Amino acid sequence: MPTGLSSLANLKYGDIFAERFSMKVRLFIDVNLASGEIIELRKDHKHYVQNVLRCRSGREIFVFNPNDGEYKAIFKGEGQIEIVEQTIEPIRENGLSLIFAPIKFGKIDYMVQKATELGVTRIQPVQTRFTAITRINYDRLSANAIEAAEQTGRINFPHIDEIMSLEKLIESWDKKQKIIFCDESKTGKPIKQVLESMPKTAKDFAILIGPEGGFAKDEAEYLRGKKFVHPASMGKRLLRAETAAIAALGVFQAIKGDWN
Amino acid sequence: MPTGLSSLANLKYGDIFAERFSMKVRLFIDVNLASGEIIELRKDHKHYVQNVLRCRSGREIFVFNPNDGEYKAIFKGEGQIEIVEQTIEPIRENGLSLIFAPIKFGKIDYMVQKATELGVTRIQPVQTRFTAITRINYDRLSANAIEAAEQTGRINFPHIDEIMSLEKLIESWDKKQKIIFCDESKTGKPIKQVLESMPKTAKDFAILIGPEGGFAKDEAEYLRGKKFVHPASMGKRLLRAETAAIAALGVFQAIKGDWN
Repeated sequence: MPTGLSSLANLKYGDIFAERFSMKVRLFIDVNLASGEIIELRKDHKHYVQNVLRCRSGREIFVFNPNDGEYKAIFKGEGQIEIVEQTIEPIRENGLSLIFAPIKFGKIDYMVQKATELGVTRIQPVQTRFTAITRINYDRLSANAIEAAEQTGRINFPHIDEIMSLEKLIESWDKKQKIIFCDESKTGKPIKQVLESMPKTAKDFAILIGPEGGFAKDEAEYLRGKKFVHPASMGKRLLRAETAAIAALGVFQAIKGDWN
Repeated sequence: MPTGLSSLANLKYGDIFAERFSMKVRLFIDVNLASGEIIELRKDHKHYVQNVLRCRSGREIFVFNPNDGEYKAIFKGEGQIEIVEQTIEPIRENGLSLIFAPIKFGKIDYMVQKATELGVTRIQPVQTRFTAITRINYDRLSANAIEAAEQTGRINFPHIDEIMSLEKLIESWDKKQKIIFCDESKTGKPIKQVLESMPKTAKDFAILIGPEGGFAKDEAEYLRGKKFVHPASMGKRLLRAETAAIAALGVFQAIKGDWN
């Protein structure tokens, strides 16, 4: 998986300078982490650290995974790092899911990156009547999520679930997880009011964004008929799906989530 | 300006179908609009309406500009439309500025589109110590803003101001317009708390987003020293500049703006 690498292709000289000399280098490493261990970097990480960043031995590198948290390590040269100490303990973030109808290549990658930055723990694509796109490259989306986690300072990253139909999703839904349904029909209450009316005991939430063409009328009615689905309005302007997703996740974190 | 056209190149067949047969066609037209008038469409709009959408005469087309609002018109064929009646009155939206350090091509276009969808009336690029990019294609950004306004249902679109240095901007700033400074240092109060503490009489706001490399320490100190600048925190995760902008604008509209 091209973690860290693909981001670098996009960097300007100034960024490379910053990256080489001061920026925190963070790598997602899927092996057990513990102080004192020597770890051999994977081939792509080795290339990134040695050839791209030109790290010298002694350079601090941070490594993380959801089970062990984040550790400071020291680059020893020759693709090896020595784990020094834990810097972030593993934590279970509050469950925040993003349910959305797939959008086209590029936009969907973008949405996964942004959702990761905004703290989403699970991404659930959903098939609706007006969803034009049904094929999803799960590996590419996971790679996007891992890269975004590296950059945003998280120790975990959202799991990308397999697409399922709206009805199957809703019927099998764990009703304890409230769904905030970003409803374009303008019949919902303002999103702020909806979030503030949620009980304090509710911990897990999902943000549901419709497809580009909107939900079919009966789909929206079906959703509104479920007790655990809360229609919410985000104003009169028509938002593109990815704008609605990013803005709604921001509003959630500000009002009900961990920005508060 | 390729209003409406560039969006079409990105559409899938399903979208084109929807656009041809049911979607609201909205064009920004920079001439006086009044019921009963016959207007000759500009060459690019004519191509879009006749060749791309294949509208037949009698088809409803909506036209708008900030001074006159939105009008329903009827396509008469041969590139002509007849204005029928006003559908949205001209309104002055609350002033909401986005101040940001320029980011690279693609990302900056994206930010302008999203800011337009989220109701921004003025976009002010600012030059900071760690801003790597200084050349801005104002025409391209304006075209992005107009196209986003067409799609999002606004009758106006943000004005893109010329880039200026942070100090010049702050020293010449109208202090009645509060600046919400999205401060990565985590020393600010949560953005929700900052927005809710604003007086009800405050109408005009600006969201200030730092460059990719963050503000220099003295720049951040300088900003925090101004009474009309309010540092606000958006959690512990490091957000990319455009994520921070979109999320902060969403939070603003939900808590203090027109989503409420």
